[in-house]
Amino acid sequence: MLIADPQDPRLDDVRDLNKSDKSGEGLVIAEGHLVVSRLVASRFPVHCIVGFASALEHYVDTYGEPGCPMYEVDRETLAQVVGFDMHRGLVAAADRVAPLSVAEAIQGAKTIAILEGVGDHENIGSLFRNAAGMDVDAVLLGAGAADPLYRRSVRVSMGHVLRLPCARFDGGFTTWQRNLELLASEGFHLVSLTPDENAVHLAEAMAGHSKVALMVGAEGPGLTEHAMRATHVRARIPMAPGTDSLNVATAAAIAFYERQRSLL
Amino acid sequence: MLIADPQDPRLDDVRDLNKSDKSGEGLVIAEGHLVVSRLVASRFPVHCIVGFASALEHYVDTYGEPGCPMYEVDRETLAQVVGFDMHRGLVAAADRVAPLSVAEAIQGAKTIAILEGVGDHENIGSLFRNAAGMDVDAVLLGAGAADPLYRRSVRVSMGHVLRLPCARFDGGFTTWQRNLELLASEGFHLVSLTPDENAVHLAEAMAGHSKVALMVGAEGPGLTEHAMRATHVRARIPMAPGTDSLNVATAAAIAFYERQRSLL
Repeated sequence: MLIADPQDPRLDDVRDLNKSDKSGEGLVIAEGHLVVSRLVASRFPVHCIVGFASALEHYVDTYGEPGCPMYEVDRETLAQVVGFDMHRGLVAAADRVAPLSVAEAIQGAKTIAILEGVGDHENIGSLFRNAAGMDVDAVLLGAGAADPLYRRSVRVSMGHVLRLPCARFDGGFTTWQRNLELLASEGFHLVSLTPDENAVHLAEAMAGHSKVALMVGAEGPGLTEHAMRATHVRARIPMAPGTDSLNVATAAAIAFYERQRSLL
Repeated sequence: MLIADPQDPRLDDVRDLNKSDKSGEGLVIAEGHLVVSRLVASRFPVHCIVGFASALEHYVDTYGEPGCPMYEVDRETLAQVVGFDMHRGLVAAADRVAPLSVAEAIQGAKTIAILEGVGDHENIGSLFRNAAGMDVDAVLLGAGAADPLYRRSVRVSMGHVLRLPCARFDGGFTTWQRNLELLASEGFHLVSLTPDENAVHLAEAMAGHSKVALMVGAEGPGLTEHAMRATHVRARIPMAPGTDSLNVATAAAIAFYERQRSLL
């Protein structure tokens, strides 16, 4: 259905994307064909897909009918509505839904990533992309971890924040400890990742465990001592002298790779 | 020395950083204390360091006298000169110098990264950061690889583009092949990284070689067939079904990690 008026309220879901994240409005935004297809396939109920005629046609040809309204707009209208020139010409909005509980997210999981204090939306997105690519089954968010459903995280994750089971630990020290104890009682070997030279090599920390939960912290400060103390082992990726610790999503990717490798 | 006039020509080296990359002027720009210190320690001759009084003082306290002019400016002047508000309050400019030859760059090297067509400055920067952190001795740039000395690459690399030996293969198919043959004749085991499921696991491709050259290609297209054909083995990082190949700097980081691990 062609919409020519940029003020049309049916376009409100994707209005001013560069000004507000729409999270406050309870929405999740997906951009581009691949990510929109992942939104459509996710548990989030899609309101609408908005795009150029050619982009909508290409979407249906590639992924089939999405089961939601599709609004056709021209390039100028889309730019006015979203607030910038959207080259890919396809954007979708969905409702946020109730988050999973920790128990739901880890159901059947063999490999889990736990994030403490990773506040950067791009890092969160990269981490989900890497986790999905290397067979991580769920991501748990501890204190200070940013919202993975922000538009930027959705985009950087290539939509994997929409697919990978994810739950948030309740706040507070006691609950954080209790959650890790719960994971341990479920048979998870808890590994914290740290640049500390006294930690064991990642390969040694991972070997021989059927269920592993890997915890990473914010770039810079890293994991807090109380978080690390609640894990079974501290693992490190050996770094050359005079260099800096790796980006958190990169370090996590290496750990996910090592986990996969330990199961070969 | 305090400079109060934003038009002072002594500040020209760091003028309008957001408009031009200064590469056209033959300059390399470093921002922030750590990266400036790496520029000062590099083979690039530093023209000047410009910064807030407190930032300059902190620099000298931490890294010692840099052996080049230091110009003190206030926050407003610096913002006017560089073209944006520079929170870290410290920036330095150096001359570009003649690039190393391939033979110079690989002198004594046991592990080399080769980039084909990695055109994104952020990816190039991340790749250097990861290479430096995990004991890669040199980076060689093939056809289409972006300039690692762009300001954005310098920043993302945390200054490691200024430290790690780097050379550019001459253009053209023949030379590219010849360069790889040269590396092979120097005893390097040539490994190309690909998502191709027929490739061998990265660990298998790396094991048992004293000298390894690892080749990666641009995100999206990956390595060209002719580049891969010139290597000894094609290696893959196993990916979960229905996911996307990793970011090139992330994939390279995993390969650098595996290389280090193979030498344990």
